[in-house]
Amino acid sequence: MTIVVTGAGGFVGRMLVGQLIGAGHTVVGVDTAAGGIPDGARAVAGDLGEPVVRAAALADGCDALVHLATVPGGAAESDPAASRRINVDAMYNLLLEAAAAGQRPRVVYASSIAVFGDPLPAHVDDATPLSPKMIYGGHKAMMEDVVAMFSNRGLIDGVTVRLPGILARPQGPSGMKSAFMSDLFHALKAGEAFVCPVSAGATIWAQSVTRCAANFVHALSLDADLLPPTRAVTLPALRITMGDLAAEIARQCGVSSDLVSYAPDAALEAAFGTQPPLETPAALHAGFAHDGDVASLVSSALAAI
Amino acid sequence: MTIVVTGAGGFVGRMLVGQLIGAGHTVVGVDTAAGGIPDGARAVAGDLGEPVVRAAALADGCDALVHLATVPGGAAESDPAASRRINVDAMYNLLLEAAAAGQRPRVVYASSIAVFGDPLPAHVDDATPLSPKMIYGGHKAMMEDVVAMFSNRGLIDGVTVRLPGILARPQGPSGMKSAFMSDLFHALKAGEAFVCPVSAGATIWAQSVTRCAANFVHALSLDADLLPPTRAVTLPALRITMGDLAAEIARQCGVSSDLVSYAPDAALEAAFGTQPPLETPAALHAGFAHDGDVASLVSSALAAI
Repeated sequence: MTIVVTGAGGFVGRMLVGQLIGAGHTVVGVDTAAGGIPDGARAVAGDLGEPVVRAAALADGCDALVHLATVPGGAAESDPAASRRINVDAMYNLLLEAAAAGQRPRVVYASSIAVFGDPLPAHVDDATPLSPKMIYGGHKAMMEDVVAMFSNRGLIDGVTVRLPGILARPQGPSGMKSAFMSDLFHALKAGEAFVCPVSAGATIWAQSVTRCAANFVHALSLDADLLPPTRAVTLPALRITMGDLAAEIARQCGVSSDLVSYAPDAALEAAFGTQPPLETPAALHAGFAHDGDVASLVSSALAAI
Repeated sequence: MTIVVTGAGGFVGRMLVGQLIGAGHTVVGVDTAAGGIPDGARAVAGDLGEPVVRAAALADGCDALVHLATVPGGAAESDPAASRRINVDAMYNLLLEAAAAGQRPRVVYASSIAVFGDPLPAHVDDATPLSPKMIYGGHKAMMEDVVAMFSNRGLIDGVTVRLPGILARPQGPSGMKSAFMSDLFHALKAGEAFVCPVSAGATIWAQSVTRCAANFVHALSLDADLLPPTRAVTLPALRITMGDLAAEIARQCGVSSDLVSYAPDAALEAAFGTQPPLETPAALHAGFAHDGDVASLVSSALAAI
């Protein structure tokens, strides 16, 4: 089975590709640079907006496509045209071309809770209407419709998963405004002080990268009849406070949680620190899972960095 | 107040433009050809995919935009690339340019019940998920997301209305697969026999063009706080059978309903003849209305052709 993974050099992509290769699949890894794509995958480096890059990615056919590549939230907000070019236009073309290269390939699309808006409504569940505000969320929502349409037309067999915060992202510029959640892990693991830009009581939705990769593996083989008509599910996540997360990371790293101080930024607190109660029965019905508890989430996340 | 109306030469556009001019508004009418645009509007003829045409449409500023222009359902299905170019790309650009030409202009967007899929689910209400199958419906759904996003960003003040079947469309090729509903009116008004391509028991959702234009006028001034977070409402419609519709048209035209025979086409029956129970509380809450009863619908529709 040939599985094409875009964004294969990203932190979720790398873990997923490793798991897929370990399971004996042929993997084509696509990213803007070849360097981050795991050994064992056929690496295709380039810009997905370029037809020649998409053609190279699909040259071996396409039994399944995991589409992780994206212009992330912060970068999309500062360059909406780049987001439109990659997150909408290139993906639309890629889906058409994947359909032509395969036999109704399973397509797993990484969408985002940003489709629900900013700030999020007071409660989020499977009936929450899509009302994006960020460019990133708007473009993700547009492409959720395309995944549903192309699935209904029999071109692809699509599964859209909306990701919560995934922990822990590597250090360095990611274009993600929510990177502070991950930076907390790196600081405490290194025994360094960390100034958190949201309050200790800030609530976030989180999933470890290990659990996230497992959810993508599950999405590759799940029975589409378990999905809602939209083909989209919001992934289960733990809803935790930054204070509780910091305490557990400190405990597992053997450092004091006093290393963490809080200097809330109003915009970040509103966008990422007030995530409301979340219910995801559709995703649970389809077999997706969260980490179980904060200790498991933290140990998985620490093991992966 | 300068109101830009795209699709101004269409049968809904013509009636709407006439009403707006009568109410004293300055109207810019845009369509592929100038011929159908009512006198009294500044006519802009051309392809909305061309930047120069959009610039001409917005040259007087934009207090409000009613976006009726579309590659219709049948035409979109046979030429998906044309639908993408006009129904997605050109509209996206038009919204950005309208936002730049005005001060958060009210944008009224004509979407479609095709966003719910084909066939429709067994019951449609405001909680029905969007799961388009037709290219037309998929592209309409994508742009519903954009209207919501741009409204949430403060660029525009958007209202999306999903149209049911609008009666009666002029005779001649329209690109609409649902044109048979209108052809029935023309045949009976002319005293001619009509072979209906769906059964007498086929159920349709319908609104007269007069009522539809009134709903657009209402959308131009309604308080957006009355709308759901998506900014989208499914317009109220009468759910009637083709047999009941034919009987009422025949009665009002003074001809025998025996002029109508039925030769159902399975695909048309499935797509347009099995429209399920419909509830539209969000639209009613926002002040939209249907025709009241079938006699009113038919008399309004007959008066307009």
